[in-house]
Amino acid sequence: MSTAGPLPVRPVLLVLDAAPRPRLGRLTGRARVEYADASTLPGRLPHADVLLVWDFTSPAVRRAWPGAGPRPRWVHTASAGVDHLICPELVASDTVVTNARGVFDEPVAEYVAALVLALAKDLPRTLDLQREREWRHRETRRVAGGRAVVVGSGPIGRAVVRVLRALGLTTALVGRTPRTGVHGPEDLDRLLARADWVVAAAPLTPETYGMFDARRFGVMQPGAYFVNVGRGRLVVEEALARALERRGIAGAALDVFADEPLTPGSPLWELPGLIVSPHMSGDTVGWRDALGAQFVELFEHWAAGRPLPNAVDKKRGYVPGH
Amino acid sequence: MSTAGPLPVRPVLLVLDAAPRPRLGRLTGRARVEYADASTLPGRLPHADVLLVWDFTSPAVRRAWPGAGPRPRWVHTASAGVDHLICPELVASDTVVTNARGVFDEPVAEYVAALVLALAKDLPRTLDLQREREWRHRETRRVAGGRAVVVGSGPIGRAVVRVLRALGLTTALVGRTPRTGVHGPEDLDRLLARADWVVAAAPLTPETYGMFDARRFGVMQPGAYFVNVGRGRLVVEEALARALERRGIAGAALDVFADEPLTPGSPLWELPGLIVSPHMSGDTVGWRDALGAQFVELFEHWAAGRPLPNAVDKKRGYVPGH
Repeated sequence: MSTAGPLPVRPVLLVLDAAPRPRLGRLTGRARVEYADASTLPGRLPHADVLLVWDFTSPAVRRAWPGAGPRPRWVHTASAGVDHLICPELVASDTVVTNARGVFDEPVAEYVAALVLALAKDLPRTLDLQREREWRHRETRRVAGGRAVVVGSGPIGRAVVRVLRALGLTTALVGRTPRTGVHGPEDLDRLLARADWVVAAAPLTPETYGMFDARRFGVMQPGAYFVNVGRGRLVVEEALARALERRGIAGAALDVFADEPLTPGSPLWELPGLIVSPHMSGDTVGWRDALGAQFVELFEHWAAGRPLPNAVDKKRGYVPGH
Repeated sequence: MSTAGPLPVRPVLLVLDAAPRPRLGRLTGRARVEYADASTLPGRLPHADVLLVWDFTSPAVRRAWPGAGPRPRWVHTASAGVDHLICPELVASDTVVTNARGVFDEPVAEYVAALVLALAKDLPRTLDLQREREWRHRETRRVAGGRAVVVGSGPIGRAVVRVLRALGLTTALVGRTPRTGVHGPEDLDRLLARADWVVAAAPLTPETYGMFDARRFGVMQPGAYFVNVGRGRLVVEEALARALERRGIAGAALDVFADEPLTPGSPLWELPGLIVSPHMSGDTVGWRDALGAQFVELFEHWAAGRPLPNAVDKKRGYVPGH
């Protein structure tokens, strides 16, 4: 329960459930683990000391939180983004929110490299031609020497910058607050206008919601490519669709969408020059185990009364720093 | 003509033609440029001082060379490989053969990175699912931390090693002659047995012909991937097909083939887990201009009587050194 005071000996750890379940064997005897789904969450929330949001695709927490009764004093989400659980009542509370900062950085960066290279080397067309058994030589683009703008200066954005630099690109990083090596939002349009590659890796906050709109796609070069591995709603999808249809930009790859999963009827599946992938950029073999291990490590901090790493600034919507 | 002696004032430069033609404006007044195709090459060869093999896909030189009459004293091919023109009579002659060493290194290495990442991130399946409008999340592989074996220790193989290392892979380079940083052929099987990635970037020579055969695919791990950007006949294609069909290896990407272009009837188009691309790994925008400029630069050396860089060891079939 959220009342301040000494930690309980065997706290109730409530898990918002998803298959496969986290491996929490190391907490045996140290926590009473209970599982909830969207329907049982509201009733169990008042009795929980800790909430592990294992089903990080669910809006259940944001829906259940404003209800009556005490609330867990710590909420951890097994995801980098926290937009799916933040609500005014949670922001106003004493509850500490932590996220999976660090687990996804390098995998997402590799995935971005894969998308950038696939677009540069025209791989989707190569696979189309292969299916048609047609040998058609084309010239493709170099990535080395190109200019990339990475929006989002957290650990994922910085990992993306590292891998793109390793491939010989020049990079510019854009974050909320300008600092050494990071441009502020006021530089974005100027940077977009000369970028070959634009990578969105920002958290979803009121400031970033819909930031890639018709005006910003209009600023980009016709030869530029856009990649989103952040959050779907960073992008005004209709604006991206129009930019692709009228060849305002050369191509794009989306791993995240305003509404997930993308329904079969979505027009995004068939946009020209667009690669659609099902929100999996960070999910390399073993990712669930890494997320479980990270939670257990944070639990050790919490049980010892130490400050929690990865504590989210609930107002900003991400872990500040660096 | 191939007789030794002083260079002619305006040598005859014969170009084995392909569209678009090379830009040779800088040689205006300094060479008489003539064009030949496969049918006219035999008749023109005796009058040529220099032969530029601009159509580097053609076997015309190897067919025409053994005929009667003098031969050019210098042959340059606008390709990295020279296997399409080497014949015993050319090897025995005084004619110097040069190749396009250096033009393709970095582009091919980028292309290899694109293929490796596409296979690791299961991109062909993602594009299949996109076409089916099906949202299906999967776990993918990390490339960082994996082990790659690169076969071919020339400039292309070394560029491949650089880019794979930049992506966090551990690499081993295999060449004809063991030296610092390069394994000899005797280490190959041991290295293949523990590789996650095998990249073929070797020239086609009697030693490398068919080196990737049933036995070598059998040595590889079931989780390993094979990429060929060297020459098609490095690979016994039937053996690769069987390895893929029985899941002896996890997947492959071929940019080169025993017979090019691949015919619509080839079974390779539809092998499970195989990416087929039409011999374009090095051909990034501007590649033809780079090849033309390289030839003009070599011509300056030749006209000044200086030794030619990129001179091929005709017996070995590549430019030795490093």
